[in-house]
Amino acid sequence: MAIISGGLSFSTFRFQPPCRSSPRCRLPVSRIRCSGLSASMDSGDEMRAKLMEFPYVSAPHRDLMVEMLSSLDTKLGSSLQPCALPPDVQHFGNPAGTAYAAMQLRPGVPSSQVDFIVGGWVHSKLPSGGAVNITSLSGYLKSSTDAPNFRLELIQRIPTSLVMVLDLTPRKDPILHPDHLKTYYEDAQLDRHRQRFHTLPEVTPYFSSSLYVRALLSPTAIVASIDVSSEEIIRDHVTPIAQELLHFWIESCACIERCVGESERAYIRERDRTIKNTAIEVDLGSSFPRMFGQDIADRVLTVLKVHHNK
Amino acid sequence: MAIISGGLSFSTFRFQPPCRSSPRCRLPVSRIRCSGLSASMDSGDEMRAKLMEFPYVSAPHRDLMVEMLSSLDTKLGSSLQPCALPPDVQHFGNPAGTAYAAMQLRPGVPSSQVDFIVGGWVHSKLPSGGAVNITSLSGYLKSSTDAPNFRLELIQRIPTSLVMVLDLTPRKDPILHPDHLKTYYEDAQLDRHRQRFHTLPEVTPYFSSSLYVRALLSPTAIVASIDVSSEEIIRDHVTPIAQELLHFWIESCACIERCVGESERAYIRERDRTIKNTAIEVDLGSSFPRMFGQDIADRVLTVLKVHHNK
Repeated sequence: MAIISGGLSFSTFRFQPPCRSSPRCRLPVSRIRCSGLSASMDSGDEMRAKLMEFPYVSAPHRDLMVEMLSSLDTKLGSSLQPCALPPDVQHFGNPAGTAYAAMQLRPGVPSSQVDFIVGGWVHSKLPSGGAVNITSLSGYLKSSTDAPNFRLELIQRIPTSLVMVLDLTPRKDPILHPDHLKTYYEDAQLDRHRQRFHTLPEVTPYFSSSLYVRALLSPTAIVASIDVSSEEIIRDHVTPIAQELLHFWIESCACIERCVGESERAYIRERDRTIKNTAIEVDLGSSFPRMFGQDIADRVLTVLKVHHNK
Repeated sequence: MAIISGGLSFSTFRFQPPCRSSPRCRLPVSRIRCSGLSASMDSGDEMRAKLMEFPYVSAPHRDLMVEMLSSLDTKLGSSLQPCALPPDVQHFGNPAGTAYAAMQLRPGVPSSQVDFIVGGWVHSKLPSGGAVNITSLSGYLKSSTDAPNFRLELIQRIPTSLVMVLDLTPRKDPILHPDHLKTYYEDAQLDRHRQRFHTLPEVTPYFSSSLYVRALLSPTAIVASIDVSSEEIIRDHVTPIAQELLHFWIESCACIERCVGESERAYIRERDRTIKNTAIEVDLGSSFPRMFGQDIADRVLTVLKVHHNK
């Protein structure tokens, strides 16, 4: 399930990664303004605080998500608008009190390459006992660049195991456009992160039940089941690798201007459109009504559709 | 390494799979003539015999390849022309006697959906001792259909372990064309083969070092390292699953007429072209000179390029 949140103003968090360029990434590009000050606290503060609680996951899991959002805000904050969602889509629950969610969606400012950042958390008690907890963060770019999108999802159904999807998802068919594969994946040596992560004894490859999700991901995607019996694995290994990928994405994808012709833009726009619609219709559309009831799901999904197709 | 061979006339092999339709595959199509008699023995008999020896692999591995070729011949023989390769490309070795290969390429007859079937074996001693043995079989379809191609590769570098790639490779970008994913993979429930195979204790997921190969494969591809310490695994599990996939491909892909418009054909032709060229240039082009020397590699690759681009 692809869920949803935004890069938020959390200046109290001390994580301040250095804004260095990756020496391995040689893109034929010019750097544009991206790093900047955090957005000032506004009337959405309460909603953002609700988002940042991540109240149903472990402390290291929460710290990971908060650090990711903090990094985004530190480095992309000035490129993002405030959350565009109404309050009842930013935080909602079902009448029975068995499912809750918080999400934020922040569009990029007009001069930015960022289309929008979306993320958040979902908690839903399972009829069989226990609960499913999902936290996620995705970054979508505009068709003015062909650089990959960012995707992090953490799905937990049992306390001792966590499924992670961490990827820069391709914007072009890598077969018909081998230069896309070369520029963003081979030359950037993105696979080294996956290789390193999979040497950990707590990590085993995981196969999503959705063939669409498998097809969507890049060949360097980390899709893993992680034994979190010992929570240090999140702090010591998951957080560093997620941060590393996010920094690469911000510096070499979101903050880089590419020269993309009109026909290429049309192709990217069309491919992006199918990805965004599928994320909502197939992914959330199949789970949200079950979790929150049809009315609440309809309200949330209608708003998300509008913002995904702007 | 994507290697290469043809569906051959081996009527002495008793494997005669029934020509039944898959009840799960509901393609909007009409069946065309494919099953037929084996091609008569011709002057290429000696070359074909050399191919069918598979002299450097274990008996179960050889039996698997021979049964696959036999199945192809039984069910697609009348749709295929004789091998189009000159004798010195059908079988060759290096001057030092440390590397040998046999391959066949059989184009489809004009009325067939099959572009060509290509396959064979490669044996090369390693400087460090030991040897690498590769056997493969690929089926490419014409742009008159969008049905997937077939690909089987078995790569062995140490006696106790075998890497297998078994897949129906997509002809369209599954993201921009979700109907392609639905028709050939989801509705056909192709993933059940992979799921079943990966329950075996001898099987572990394998990641190709080539990002291109990973991107080329379908979401249901079986890419596995197989512990062949006990060779029964090949006879009892690898052969049945490879045969099952091949039969599905023959019956639901190679022998089915699809309605493909001209612009779609142009798209498929272009995508196929990049796949075929990459298979030769990147894949064989990087290994054959090292194994056979530049002159022999050039001779073989030049001929293969001509036939892949006809």
